[in-house]
Amino acid sequence: MKSFTLYNPTKLVFGAGSASKISELVPSKARVLLVYGGGSVKKNGSYDQTIKALGKRKVVEFSGIEPNPEYETCLKAVEVIKKNKLDFIIALGGGSVIDACKFIASATLFKGKNPWSILTSYGTNIKEALPIGTVLTIPATGSEMNPNSVISRRATVEKLAFASDLVFPQFSILDPTFTLTLPERQISNGVVDAFVHVMEQYCTMPADAPIQDRFAESILSTLIEEGPKALKNKDDFAVRANIMFAATMALNKLICVGVPEDWSTHGIGHEITAVYGLDHAQTLAIVLPKILKYKSSQKGEKIVQLGKRVFGINEKSKKVAIEKTIDAIVKFFKKMKMKTELSQYGIGKDAPEKIADNFAKNNTAIGEHHDIMRDDIVKILSL
Amino acid sequence: MKSFTLYNPTKLVFGAGSASKISELVPSKARVLLVYGGGSVKKNGSYDQTIKALGKRKVVEFSGIEPNPEYETCLKAVEVIKKNKLDFIIALGGGSVIDACKFIASATLFKGKNPWSILTSYGTNIKEALPIGTVLTIPATGSEMNPNSVISRRATVEKLAFASDLVFPQFSILDPTFTLTLPERQISNGVVDAFVHVMEQYCTMPADAPIQDRFAESILSTLIEEGPKALKNKDDFAVRANIMFAATMALNKLICVGVPEDWSTHGIGHEITAVYGLDHAQTLAIVLPKILKYKSSQKGEKIVQLGKRVFGINEKSKKVAIEKTIDAIVKFFKKMKMKTELSQYGIGKDAPEKIADNFAKNNTAIGEHHDIMRDDIVKILSL
Repeated sequence: MKSFTLYNPTKLVFGAGSASKISELVPSKARVLLVYGGGSVKKNGSYDQTIKALGKRKVVEFSGIEPNPEYETCLKAVEVIKKNKLDFIIALGGGSVIDACKFIASATLFKGKNPWSILTSYGTNIKEALPIGTVLTIPATGSEMNPNSVISRRATVEKLAFASDLVFPQFSILDPTFTLTLPERQISNGVVDAFVHVMEQYCTMPADAPIQDRFAESILSTLIEEGPKALKNKDDFAVRANIMFAATMALNKLICVGVPEDWSTHGIGHEITAVYGLDHAQTLAIVLPKILKYKSSQKGEKIVQLGKRVFGINEKSKKVAIEKTIDAIVKFFKKMKMKTELSQYGIGKDAPEKIADNFAKNNTAIGEHHDIMRDDIVKILSL
Repeated sequence: MKSFTLYNPTKLVFGAGSASKISELVPSKARVLLVYGGGSVKKNGSYDQTIKALGKRKVVEFSGIEPNPEYETCLKAVEVIKKNKLDFIIALGGGSVIDACKFIASATLFKGKNPWSILTSYGTNIKEALPIGTVLTIPATGSEMNPNSVISRRATVEKLAFASDLVFPQFSILDPTFTLTLPERQISNGVVDAFVHVMEQYCTMPADAPIQDRFAESILSTLIEEGPKALKNKDDFAVRANIMFAATMALNKLICVGVPEDWSTHGIGHEITAVYGLDHAQTLAIVLPKILKYKSSQKGEKIVQLGKRVFGINEKSKKVAIEKTIDAIVKFFKKMKMKTELSQYGIGKDAPEKIADNFAKNNTAIGEHHDIMRDDIVKILSL
């Protein structure tokens, strides 16, 4: 394996009723901005429990964070913080709200003239940030325990990511109860998103990193086992607990240490969302199997290992093993009620070219070998 | 799974040459106590690289930490810190040195009259501690990334543990190069120690915690694969890297979250060390298989799962599967050149009674069900 740094200071407080711990985790004199998206947090109990745990602390609410959090909205939140002299941010929701809060926390204390440069510098110009706590209601992105954030800017049609150790949440409350009221589509999306997060860090080339490989396979196996159960038994707390923990471990800087990473499925997926507006996870379920097929010579050894260890596929022929493993992934996505073809969304045959063109506007090459380019994307999406 | 808190702020800096990062990780104005045991750190390169990375910082050395670190020795280190007004501790060595530094860091800032009460209170009276960094030279105990410490007191023949979030190392340097010069016995000890650490957190009763189970199995499988290679190919950096990472992950508060823990093998092992002076890991290799046999009805399901997933044992009969799995563990210990019977160390047949009596002096019951008592220990050791 390669050299690495493993660092994650977020305190995960997991279990039923864990939101009550906010009363100990937030300083008693803190002045809090409570950030959320829409009204679902008022239905699943997370809002009430958070407010109760905050007790007599000054709390100002800021709602309306978009599913793809907007720069302009975040800047409004910064103004609310400054006006009310707040010093602690609580993100109540899923990855979008948490990503927004990471930007808000950085932009509030940013000394430069243009806060957008936080994104164009990929977070390297962040010198300080307000402390953040999160109350997670959608298991999917892992943002509750990582230093990453993605922010969109409508005016310039840009969508950029940044990362900084300064925006790791100080704590994250993970109460699986809050996920019991999620609509089916968000469960499917979350499980597939977490699955593909693992694949991006795992399914590259062998790197003599057996712990990282097996940890990745652990998360994949668990998602395959528990995901379909969540769709069948909608009030099974234990299943939701396992999915919630799996999704956090899927993208918290653990399984990526010392190994190559791919992220081409995400790269192409983002373009599909940009052009056709599909949910993030919907795009991933379409792209991943095609990437694996297209890159089966480079990724072959890891696909065979995945097939053997996770899907129990034992074939003498490497070619057959690869085919069966990719088929097994497609079957799993279908079990999670995800479509795996653009055509199933009524998207026409010109889509590969359109998506590839959009990619080529701002990117040149992606993948662990940096060799997936515009024309490869056309071929991948045409498979 | 049960509710839990997952928290680990230690920054792990892993890889060849990583000690050079100390120059960034320790504040430039820090006044450092550099703590180590004997002279091995001057042979494996770790001492030289640490001193070089510390540059012009004030450094006072304190050597002579014992394999079972002594309270009295630690108090001498506290005096050196106070006399020289030092404010940062670097532990250079294995688990003993790191454990000692955790106590020294706490005792230096301890306001109470009797620092031994840090141990009798299990660390609950620690209010602050000096920052600690570590440079690990022996992969085994996991102390480099956990909040635990064990300290002995010769005067009263006591050996007590404590834990505090305040003594997590701020950083730990893991350069596998430093482990290439370890004597065979320390490699064997380290691999078996890490293996048993995992078993204590894994092999209890099913707890519907598939991520934790599979992470545990990941570490066990890796130790089984890589451990014997380390004995055969003594200069294989990649093998040592995998063992080093595995040993850290084996006891860093990750795989224990939300699941029951046993620790009876350690409990009985400590008594064997106390009475007969065997190395810690030597005692574990003797006790673990016997505990698994004695508790095979309570632990049966997990033993069968371990056999299937880690050793590839597929038997219809649960009884046969359990027997074969325990045999496979014994075979692994033998491959690691560890003895698995007290008699192989020339210890007589009166040992079980003597060890059990020593246990009964300070303990009543151990194990995940708190049902292993004095007479059980006699029966276990007589198996």
